[in-house]
Amino acid sequence: MTTTAESTIRNGVDTTALFATIGAVKAQPELAKFQFRATNRWVDGTHNRGTINGYYGAGQEHNRAQDFTFPADHPPVLTGGDRGPTPVEYLLHALAACLAAGLANIAAARGVMLTDVEATVEGDIDLRGILGLGGGVRNGFEQIRVSFAISGDAPAEKLRELVEQSRQRSAVFDIITNPVPVSIDVTIR
Amino acid sequence: MTTTAESTIRNGVDTTALFATIGAVKAQPELAKFQFRATNRWVDGTHNRGTINGYYGAGQEHNRAQDFTFPADHPPVLTGGDRGPTPVEYLLHALAACLAAGLANIAAARGVMLTDVEATVEGDIDLRGILGLGGGVRNGFEQIRVSFAISGDAPAEKLRELVEQSRQRSAVFDIITNPVPVSIDVTIR
Repeated sequence: MTTTAESTIRNGVDTTALFATIGAVKAQPELAKFQFRATNRWVDGTHNRGTINGYYGAGQEHNRAQDFTFPADHPPVLTGGDRGPTPVEYLLHALAACLAAGLANIAAARGVMLTDVEATVEGDIDLRGILGLGGGVRNGFEQIRVSFAISGDAPAEKLRELVEQSRQRSAVFDIITNPVPVSIDVTIR
Repeated sequence: MTTTAESTIRNGVDTTALFATIGAVKAQPELAKFQFRATNRWVDGTHNRGTINGYYGAGQEHNRAQDFTFPADHPPVLTGGDRGPTPVEYLLHALAACLAAGLANIAAARGVMLTDVEATVEGDIDLRGILGLGGGVRNGFEQIRVSFAISGDAPAEKLRELVEQSRQRSAVFDIITNPVPVSIDVTIR
């Protein structure tokens, strides 16, 4: 049994379970339909609190053992109180986390053991957009740069290929680099 | 002094400071150039940890009193361990937080007192994309729906206008609904 475990778990990824998931979705594509959610409650000024828990997927509802809650705020220089990161910083975090998780999965699937993975993400934004002062200035990031530093038991070219494959399969990378339709509905209480 | 405070702080937003910021940026547009950042360290499998702190803006570097750190993971149904939200859930949280902060600012600037603001965000995703099984299935969300429930001391139509204005000035809404260029650089250690 130890031998089996050693041969299927790489980088902390159970590749048997990963391939089983891929096989199950291949046989039954409706299992791939997921809905993720976040709720938010305004606290004060630019300070608000997000909660993440339930999601739908693989044909049923799921709930974690406990809620994940996250404060968001603006820094003082943007009339906030620094009681949490800014929303755009959470978005940069989401991008790094998505690419890193994908990299570990893909490396495991291809038999590469990773030793260390670090990423830094920088996003450039001109606030004239959100302040309503910019003729042609967009509201969001003008450019995002991700820098990975990785080590593992494969040649440099192979390791670079794994990052490239993670990029090609990343949900958050797709959402940021391509348009997603967003609808907003308002109920007045 | 109490009178002054009462007349300029609404919804926890210091409108005097807000208008001063807008005035300063108008006079000196380079103050609007910001760079936000997140770093990430891979832990194990799909589990990794993001750190948010320093940023550049208003002509100088800024550091918070302490780091904000956030775990990310996949749920068990996606070969993870639920040690944190998924990256795409952080992105939904970022969207809700951005719209809520903008709403509070805009309401304050227009003299509206908000009583309560709640938001729910749902994102539909077909995992055949990230699993490499989908011919035409994208990796990211196919559709995102935001539902606001708000109350305040203005007519329903006015409250709806505030949400619409927040949407029009939201950095995260822009990033999700329009393409942002993302570059990825890899250093092998």
